[in-house]
Amino acid sequence: MSQWRRRYGAPVLDFAAGNGLINRRALLGSGVTFVGSLAAAAGTVTGAAAEPLADAPWSLAVGEIMPAVQTPSAFEKDVTRALSNPNGEFRTSHARTPHHRLGGTVTPNGLHFSINHGGIPNIDPAEHKLVIHGMVRQPLEFTLESLSRYPLVTRMAFVECAGNSAPMFAKEPLQTTVQMLHGLVSNAEWTGVPLSTLLDEAGIDPTAKWLVAEGADAQFLDRSVPVKKAYDDALIAIYQNGEHLMPGNGYPMRLLLPGYQGNMNVKYVRRIKVIDRPAYSYFETKNYSQILPGGKTWRFHFLMEVKSFITHPSYGLSLKQPGLYAISGLAYSGTGRISKVMVSADGGKSWGEAALQGPIQDKAFTRFVMPWRWDGQPAILQSRAYDDGGNVQPLRAEFVAMRGEASRPVTTPLGFPNQHYNSITSWAVDSAGEIKHVYA
Amino acid sequence: MSQWRRRYGAPVLDFAAGNGLINRRALLGSGVTFVGSLAAAAGTVTGAAAEPLADAPWSLAVGEIMPAVQTPSAFEKDVTRALSNPNGEFRTSHARTPHHRLGGTVTPNGLHFSINHGGIPNIDPAEHKLVIHGMVRQPLEFTLESLSRYPLVTRMAFVECAGNSAPMFAKEPLQTTVQMLHGLVSNAEWTGVPLSTLLDEAGIDPTAKWLVAEGADAQFLDRSVPVKKAYDDALIAIYQNGEHLMPGNGYPMRLLLPGYQGNMNVKYVRRIKVIDRPAYSYFETKNYSQILPGGKTWRFHFLMEVKSFITHPSYGLSLKQPGLYAISGLAYSGTGRISKVMVSADGGKSWGEAALQGPIQDKAFTRFVMPWRWDGQPAILQSRAYDDGGNVQPLRAEFVAMRGEASRPVTTPLGFPNQHYNSITSWAVDSAGEIKHVYA
Repeated sequence: MSQWRRRYGAPVLDFAAGNGLINRRALLGSGVTFVGSLAAAAGTVTGAAAEPLADAPWSLAVGEIMPAVQTPSAFEKDVTRALSNPNGEFRTSHARTPHHRLGGTVTPNGLHFSINHGGIPNIDPAEHKLVIHGMVRQPLEFTLESLSRYPLVTRMAFVECAGNSAPMFAKEPLQTTVQMLHGLVSNAEWTGVPLSTLLDEAGIDPTAKWLVAEGADAQFLDRSVPVKKAYDDALIAIYQNGEHLMPGNGYPMRLLLPGYQGNMNVKYVRRIKVIDRPAYSYFETKNYSQILPGGKTWRFHFLMEVKSFITHPSYGLSLKQPGLYAISGLAYSGTGRISKVMVSADGGKSWGEAALQGPIQDKAFTRFVMPWRWDGQPAILQSRAYDDGGNVQPLRAEFVAMRGEASRPVTTPLGFPNQHYNSITSWAVDSAGEIKHVYA
Repeated sequence: MSQWRRRYGAPVLDFAAGNGLINRRALLGSGVTFVGSLAAAAGTVTGAAAEPLADAPWSLAVGEIMPAVQTPSAFEKDVTRALSNPNGEFRTSHARTPHHRLGGTVTPNGLHFSINHGGIPNIDPAEHKLVIHGMVRQPLEFTLESLSRYPLVTRMAFVECAGNSAPMFAKEPLQTTVQMLHGLVSNAEWTGVPLSTLLDEAGIDPTAKWLVAEGADAQFLDRSVPVKKAYDDALIAIYQNGEHLMPGNGYPMRLLLPGYQGNMNVKYVRRIKVIDRPAYSYFETKNYSQILPGGKTWRFHFLMEVKSFITHPSYGLSLKQPGLYAISGLAYSGTGRISKVMVSADGGKSWGEAALQGPIQDKAFTRFVMPWRWDGQPAILQSRAYDDGGNVQPLRAEFVAMRGEASRPVTTPLGFPNQHYNSITSWAVDSAGEIKHVYA
């Protein structure tokens, strides 16, 4: 009983860094100091009796019929992906995940990001085949049904378009949501057959160094993949968060290359040809060669590097009154696991270490949380991620010095000169609680 | 390169137990012996050239327009929850998860199981309130918006109806799918505020031992919860797999009591009253008092104990030909983590240890996988789970001796005399590859 009695203690805030960041230890058992003072801000004190409670109309009538497949409440109708091409014109379509409206780390399948260059193929899984051929002893052909007989592997993994966050190459910060800036990354539990298993069955030629994976979409999208990556952790994925893949995410099967550019995770994969050199396909020569300010180019730079962004609060989610808040966001790295996320409320002058939600998984989203007391004065919120490979998310100034910026505002990532943007994002809170995107 | 060359070695199967169970080490790097022989069975050998590939119709035309919220392929239209009350008659409705059609461990939100006794309320989250009152220093009131300001906690957890698997109390094994037998359990990533945080804010009376949680559905469903559980790991959950809760799973907020009877995880929770004794509500006195064969009763027996079932292969998924397969299923325990799953292909005469998909999480689904060579002869497949509390899933004979069985076939769990069924499930494969449910 004494464990509850001591909770009556008066709140004492333990600050971790400037401008109101509270030590994350406040979340771990010694939470007494934190939660006591949150009451007045977040919880509304009720009348003394609180009984009888008022009965809402939905409590006084029989509810709706249970559907065979349930969908979100009608009150959530605005929680959707942002579409770049809602009428299906003859160009690329993007659908961005609304991270500012989500919590946790799993992206629900309905809201997983998607990019397609020739529309979404409506594939009959009974007719779709994956062929493994080229430099192999024996070409093999697989169907969704035959792959389902294998011992399947399950893992969490983010997939991120190399063009995600490309709007941040703009010289001036675009005033838009985290969905529009960073919505081309999502995180799901993928289940499939290790590609190494299938290559071993086909008997890969030991001199082969590359694969070319090709999709069955109208573009026959193809990308070169090092054989080494295939043996590291590549999957032919057939389930996404427990159910078969979404049509926009590669139904009935896709290549999953954890931590590599989204475009390489070939959807609707219909063949993997083993070859002795890269294929120099359209996307690896035109779009995904990173041009550096000096004119040099990074070729075959596949890794999506360490990154984080704050989702709550962020542009579009204003603060209504001073008081206690949680600063929360997502961190991930194509190198491995997130080791630490630091948060600043004073534009980088001081930093406090955020709490990470476990288990921290390889090449998957990690949610970070930092309690914060907003005093009603201007603040600049930032997050900075570190991974277990020793990499640290760059400041924007560092990033721009290395990678350049763009003079024109462009609304689609492919219009930007470059990809693989991973610097810190800064949200400025003004004294009215409104939030702007700033470069700081 | 030699690492690939050695993969040409001739297959040698390493058996773990009787009737074709293959050592799970075959899945871990020394996979050479396993995969080589799977080729002939699962992969179809193609013609020598494999080029040019035939182009499917969906590769030759622009595909469909990208939707704002994506949904499964039309080819997956039969992957739905099984409804006990599809027309919404004035009685309880159940929707069961189709585990035999899913993979991995996450249950996608559309297919999460649901039980409602008065239909699904259509709650306006701007109007819904949660009151914490009773034996507290200061009653408090919370909304979805105010809860969203707290430092949220994210975790995987299964929720299981105490009546899940109740059809296995029947004297004769019912010939039906894993969905109909075990579909009242699902697993999701839940995000919410620790209930302890909110109780601390309200200032709980140290002499209080119980809470009563009440929902805003038409039944005002209420259950008593020990204060100790509230401080262990209870959440007021507001996100499910990243998005706000499904209407059938408690939108906009629910009590989450990991490992406890589903019914206690009160949905649409509108108040938590702190009291000094249990409330003896309808569901804890009528339905969830376990009556033992001798006439004694387990009262306030909340824990969902260690359990597993094989999803692949299972009733309805026949084997088309002898060869290599993966035996795969789900294991979980309300006590903690799964420590081991043993699999038998000879009705329990011999057992081999299955591979577990990590990370193994507390009170959450763990997927197990066991490679198996089916020789075309009759086999009886079983799984048996162990948890880190030292508990082991009972054999059916052990379970029935302790808990009894029912003389009449009843199709809804609430019609059975008892709850908390957790014995082994047995699938008999005949020489034609057809699968029946048996008691073995």
